[in-house]
Amino acid sequence: MRMAGKASAQVIAMRGAGYYSSNTVGAKAVIDKAGDLVVEALGSMALEAAETTFSVCDYGAADGGTSLDMMRRLVDTVRQRAPGRAIQITYTDLPHNDFSALFRLTQGLLGDQAKPPIADTPNLYILGSGTSFYRQIVPDGTLNLGFSATAMHWLSKRPGLIADHVQAVGATPEEQALFRRQAMADWDTILLARARELAPGGKLVLANFCADEQGRYLGHTGGVNMFDEFARHWRDLWKAGRITEAEYRGATFQQFYKTPDEFAAPFRDPASAVAKAGLVLDHISTTVTACPYAADFARHGDAAAFARAYVPTLRSWSETVFAGALDAHRTAHERAAIVDAFYGAYEAEVAANPAGHAMDYVHCVTVISKKAGT
Amino acid sequence: MRMAGKASAQVIAMRGAGYYSSNTVGAKAVIDKAGDLVVEALGSMALEAAETTFSVCDYGAADGGTSLDMMRRLVDTVRQRAPGRAIQITYTDLPHNDFSALFRLTQGLLGDQAKPPIADTPNLYILGSGTSFYRQIVPDGTLNLGFSATAMHWLSKRPGLIADHVQAVGATPEEQALFRRQAMADWDTILLARARELAPGGKLVLANFCADEQGRYLGHTGGVNMFDEFARHWRDLWKAGRITEAEYRGATFQQFYKTPDEFAAPFRDPASAVAKAGLVLDHISTTVTACPYAADFARHGDAAAFARAYVPTLRSWSETVFAGALDAHRTAHERAAIVDAFYGAYEAEVAANPAGHAMDYVHCVTVISKKAGT
Ligand SMILES: C[S@@+](CC[C@H](N)C(=O)[O-])C[C@H]1O[C@@H](n2cnc3c(N)ncnc32)[C@H](O)[C@@H]1O
Ligand SMILES: C[S@@+](CC[C@H](N)C(=O)[O-])C[C@H]1O[C@@H](n2cnc3c(N)ncnc32)[C@H](O)[C@@H]1O
Repeated sequence: MRMAGKASAQVIAMRGAGYYSSNTVGAKAVIDKAGDLVVEALGSMALEAAETTFSVCDYGAADGGTSLDMMRRLVDTVRQRAPGRAIQITYTDLPHNDFSALFRLTQGLLGDQAKPPIADTPNLYILGSGTSFYRQIVPDGTLNLGFSATAMHWLSKRPGLIADHVQAVGATPEEQALFRRQAMADWDTILLARARELAPGGKLVLANFCADEQGRYLGHTGGVNMFDEFARHWRDLWKAGRITEAEYRGATFQQFYKTPDEFAAPFRDPASAVAKAGLVLDHISTTVTACPYAADFARHGDAAAFARAYVPTLRSWSETVFAGALDAHRTAHERAAIVDAFYGAYEAEVAANPAGHAMDYVHCVTVISKKAGT
Repeated sequence: MRMAGKASAQVIAMRGAGYYSSNTVGAKAVIDKAGDLVVEALGSMALEAAETTFSVCDYGAADGGTSLDMMRRLVDTVRQRAPGRAIQITYTDLPHNDFSALFRLTQGLLGDQAKPPIADTPNLYILGSGTSFYRQIVPDGTLNLGFSATAMHWLSKRPGLIADHVQAVGATPEEQALFRRQAMADWDTILLARARELAPGGKLVLANFCADEQGRYLGHTGGVNMFDEFARHWRDLWKAGRITEAEYRGATFQQFYKTPDEFAAPFRDPASAVAKAGLVLDHISTTVTACPYAADFARHGDAAAFARAYVPTLRSWSETVFAGALDAHRTAHERAAIVDAFYGAYEAEVAANPAGHAMDYVHCVTVISKKAGT
């Protein structure tokens, strides 16, 4: 996949240098929970066969900060049963990801230095790959455990714009159908690339954003709908003449939240390419992870402090979508001012009227294995 | 190795985002020549045994730009004899290296886009490792071909300061002895880490800066001595009161240029750890690569244009040493102004008096193999 060029492309990026992890307590909680399934998945694997390197991939790992504790658990589990076996962790993300932050973090040169750096573990090798998970990343049959959290809702391309909203959740049925079709094709691409990478008996543990059985999704779990808020504040900038109509329409997340049935579909159809590639769905469930900022607010009750902590978290993963919708002819200074105004308005609203604001995470967790002998 | 902390540490960095390769025609010429030895080394390897991935490492690869053509040749050679064999290229450098530039370059998202991106080669996998070559980077016995160019003269730590010069070539005998001792210990560390990584029959092709049989070294091949120039311009800033004495003494390259005999020493002693680890020296030679900027100047004769092209090349790899010697309390603006003045003076001198300025490269090229059955 190429992210550059085409009108349909969008720069998907988090802010670099450790900014991401320190603002994503919730993302870490999701991964820590998924860690239980990772340990369980390892339980049924023949780890003791120490011939080859035990190879792990973390797809869409950003700076690796949120998965670090889970990785330590994984490494400990493998080491207990196969003390002499080399372990390789390949952290993957898009080419422009801040891999330096990742290497510094795992080597203890950045961030929390209380624990010994994971990179100092004997016979453990940490690699990076700036290769989209829409491509094959490691050689055929070499992957033992694939992990991914909160990354595969990003589509390989944007199938269209959402004219009067920013995310597929608020799109018209026609717009939504385009996004769903893209998402289903992308899910196949992701799974087929992993099917080639996986060793027989290897497993994937994936925690993906979803729309759950009750219609809940990120930032829409009963209170204020976060994506409606994004759309409204962006619309306000258009109405106020700060942005053009094209800029208003241009802000469209290149994302889709599949339902559990959509995640399961390729596994339930024995004629599907995914089933034929030997992938089996061992587990599927959904889970809601409460917004840590809203939880803090419930304790301290300081609305301004809540808004100051909450909105930057939203900004960390959404900023490039809004900044990217702005006309290329604007100066960097103008763009920054508009984006600041956008999040500033959101923050002011949360401070003035904090009730119901929460970015609860809604995930679909799947455990998938590759049949031996395929 | 940790680059942070200790007084002895120095930030070793090239400027990011493609700046390096476009300024280093000479470095590419060195690698292209070494490519002949790479192809020759492959000639004696059992490539057809297609069980495992053919694994290549490029140690100290920076953005991978200078070795790209050599890598294409390497990949073609392997593919001709082993069409079905997966190939993995692991590009390594220090943690703070610009790995994004590397991934974008290999995927055709940056730089020259005339040739199809190497990352699009079927069954080829490109990984990065922000891990010093003073550590083991890939698992035991998995490396088939290790390559490195113009990187291993950087020491793992600075054994001291050079009071009245900037590089070990201009140090007092006592200072030089400390640097030599560090360099020999470092060479052992590098080779022993590679000995663990190498598969039996695997090989290393290394093109390292050296001091050759005639005492020539980088920028000292008969004309003006480049390191003496650095020292003089830095001293001028001190004499003029622009920098303090501590800053003057602080600019010390964490480097050493070994002689061919020093490179060969661990192989010639059968009792050495390197020899016992099964490493054998198959080839050693030295080579001088003419400075492309001086060659251009000989053609066009425009001294100002020569200076404008030449000095930025020097700057690309030396800047962090001088900037890093400046007091941490100076503002970023002050530091930039001093460093600009430093290279500005050098450039003015070259423009005024261009004769003899040339950064000819002087390399020692070694081919090393790991005995089968060790
Ligand atoms: C929300 S972050 C998740 C980071 C981490 N996994 C976590 O859960 O905290 C999503 C990451 O997915 C990455 N991403 C998006 N599309 C991708 C793709 N096609 N291939 C690889 N990574 C991708 C983004 O660059 C970003 O770093
Ligand atoms: C002059 S550049 C050479 C780049 C490329 N190999 C070439 O020949 O054009 C030297 C590179 O070595 C890297 N380097 C220095 N010390 C290193 C170490 N201990 N481990 C890995 N890379 C190192 C630097 O960061 C830099 O990118």
